[in-house]
Amino acid sequence: MRTRVGIVGAGPAGLVLSLLLAERGIDSVVVETRDRAEIERTMRAGVLEQGTVELLTGLGVGARVHAEGARHEGIELRFGGRGHRIDFTGLTGRAVWLYPQHEVLKDLIAALVGAGADLRFGARDVALREVASDEPVISFTDADGTPVELRCEVVAGCDGSSGVSRRAVPDGRRTDYFRAYPFGWFGILAEAPRSSPELVYAHSERGFALISTRTPDVQRMYFQCAPDERPEDWGDDRIWSELGARVAGEDGFTLNEGRIVDRGVIPMRSYVCEPMRHGRLLLAGDAAHVVPPTGAKGLNLAVADVVVLARVLERFFATGDADALEDYGPTAARRVWRAQHFSWWMTSMLHRDPVGSPFDLRRQLGELELVAGSTAAATHLAESYTGWPVEP
Amino acid sequence: MRTRVGIVGAGPAGLVLSLLLAERGIDSVVVETRDRAEIERTMRAGVLEQGTVELLTGLGVGARVHAEGARHEGIELRFGGRGHRIDFTGLTGRAVWLYPQHEVLKDLIAALVGAGADLRFGARDVALREVASDEPVISFTDADGTPVELRCEVVAGCDGSSGVSRRAVPDGRRTDYFRAYPFGWFGILAEAPRSSPELVYAHSERGFALISTRTPDVQRMYFQCAPDERPEDWGDDRIWSELGARVAGEDGFTLNEGRIVDRGVIPMRSYVCEPMRHGRLLLAGDAAHVVPPTGAKGLNLAVADVVVLARVLERFFATGDADALEDYGPTAARRVWRAQHFSWWMTSMLHRDPVGSPFDLRRQLGELELVAGSTAAATHLAESYTGWPVEP
Repeated sequence: MRTRVGIVGAGPAGLVLSLLLAERGIDSVVVETRDRAEIERTMRAGVLEQGTVELLTGLGVGARVHAEGARHEGIELRFGGRGHRIDFTGLTGRAVWLYPQHEVLKDLIAALVGAGADLRFGARDVALREVASDEPVISFTDADGTPVELRCEVVAGCDGSSGVSRRAVPDGRRTDYFRAYPFGWFGILAEAPRSSPELVYAHSERGFALISTRTPDVQRMYFQCAPDERPEDWGDDRIWSELGARVAGEDGFTLNEGRIVDRGVIPMRSYVCEPMRHGRLLLAGDAAHVVPPTGAKGLNLAVADVVVLARVLERFFATGDADALEDYGPTAARRVWRAQHFSWWMTSMLHRDPVGSPFDLRRQLGELELVAGSTAAATHLAESYTGWPVEP
Repeated sequence: MRTRVGIVGAGPAGLVLSLLLAERGIDSVVVETRDRAEIERTMRAGVLEQGTVELLTGLGVGARVHAEGARHEGIELRFGGRGHRIDFTGLTGRAVWLYPQHEVLKDLIAALVGAGADLRFGARDVALREVASDEPVISFTDADGTPVELRCEVVAGCDGSSGVSRRAVPDGRRTDYFRAYPFGWFGILAEAPRSSPELVYAHSERGFALISTRTPDVQRMYFQCAPDERPEDWGDDRIWSELGARVAGEDGFTLNEGRIVDRGVIPMRSYVCEPMRHGRLLLAGDAAHVVPPTGAKGLNLAVADVVVLARVLERFFATGDADALEDYGPTAARRVWRAQHFSWWMTSMLHRDPVGSPFDLRRQLGELELVAGSTAAATHLAESYTGWPVEP
């Protein structure tokens, strides 16, 4: 079996790439280990940059984002006991959309299936072979048990940080840039009305907290915790008490509490693999890089990667010039490192460093006052959060 | 002997305060351990914010800054082998002046002496007593050997980080916020023509370097070194080789070398003492806070302190209300913490962290590209470097 572009992974990167390629008349096959139902029900938060929404709209999959997503024109930075709004739209003319990632995936899958795309869910034993040759192969066992050898001209590795693609780049041929943070996020889903019309990023002496929203009746909240914090050690009262203490202030801000229906600890880490290409294997999205969630960049960066990748592949197939593929990594990496910086910045500005000093805490407050008080600094944050233009 | 305001220290803070008070008809005496000649010949770098120059001009001591100082409308951030100009004047309408600190001090002393101010240089055994009372005392031995008891209504502690003022605040009544950096600056003075029309702040894998200028024939250059680096271990060739490597690039930028006439290592640290007042003793300038030199904020912050202090003292002497003094510290500290953040930011963006990872180095490059490439981010830097407006 043959295709021009074998895509490993049906996450945001793989699915958007398949649609972008179809638009250019380039055929692809998507190979994914999970089944469709599992992908569509695995709830993941989603903050979509304006450029991501515009891209989805242009691909004909933006209807539900606009109908059911929530357009947010700013966020609140909360520090020193008060809220300080960063007015994205006033500062940049741009906005973000809250729309869960799994809903984006549903929309993408529906569009691809409707267009007759070849999506292989529930694949087992996915492996890559001969990626440095002109005919890389994805081998897998199809959902019905049939062994498949998918011969490709190019393989797009879009299977996330635990997939086979990243590991198909030999150790000696890639550099892993990594940073672990000395804290995690304790996250809950609670059945409660929203506490604030916009996302609240809270700095406090007790550490960071994020007050977000999933639906009008279900709220997503996080607070900074130890990286090895055990969710089972936290009763509901203790959780609400901790969250409440982190957002308390002289303005009387309070959280709407409710039944906690989910809880868990997520790690905080930064990772980049370079180069993002090895032979005919090109990495995109989490397969190539991971950001801490503070900057809300994960999904958007995956989409930005494949916008560059689709353009590069179009040129490659039009000219047959393999050198075209070389442009992908360096071009995509420029945005990746800016996003890594932004994610680190939001993280370091808002989290309490467990080994930090009282000086560091006061310096953070000086920084937050500057950001909230300077139009230029707030615009820099707003531009970064709502998303830079895609690299030409 | 009596005065309204006893000023300890004839640095920028103490001298500007004395002039600001004289302008308001409030008498003061300045007590300084060094003699006048020593102060006037101790060479110190000086980058004056536009607001500092405007203040000096308003006080009638700006003639030489304008005649002999160099107005700089931008700086160069150098990274990735290329220079990237931050256009202060284009972005903010503002500029900075290069004019050495000891020249500022000469101008201030000449003006004060001309106005008949009481300046006691060469004082010995300076000590503070009863600072929490309504009649604090500065005792010292005058240059001619006469013991003096100077009874004041208020004492302004402007005698720097090693003076007696800071230590006159009892340990239990102050918080010392401190941060040491794991590097220092190796500085040289070289007889050479300038290498660049503007200051060059260079990021490199080998660490930070700063290319500055003293006069058309004498240049000041620094490079990041270990905090315990020994100047005697560095021959001239090794110094030029290291400086050259840090600013090298594809654009062919080269340093003009020359005879090295001075060399030394300066430490990098951040410090704030709060509160900035204890009874009738009010701290200003380096007595209250120290910044690393990367943000060029030291002298400017001292001047900003005493602008606030002069206003507070004017109110205090007009109303007799001791509560007026309470406003000084919190008002001045807002700017101090912003400046501490800015100084930390410039330091952390440009220096190599000795225990940092390759990720950190690449993230810095992502940050520098953002700052150089985003008008908003560059404006934020330019506003901070040229100086925020003084607090109302």
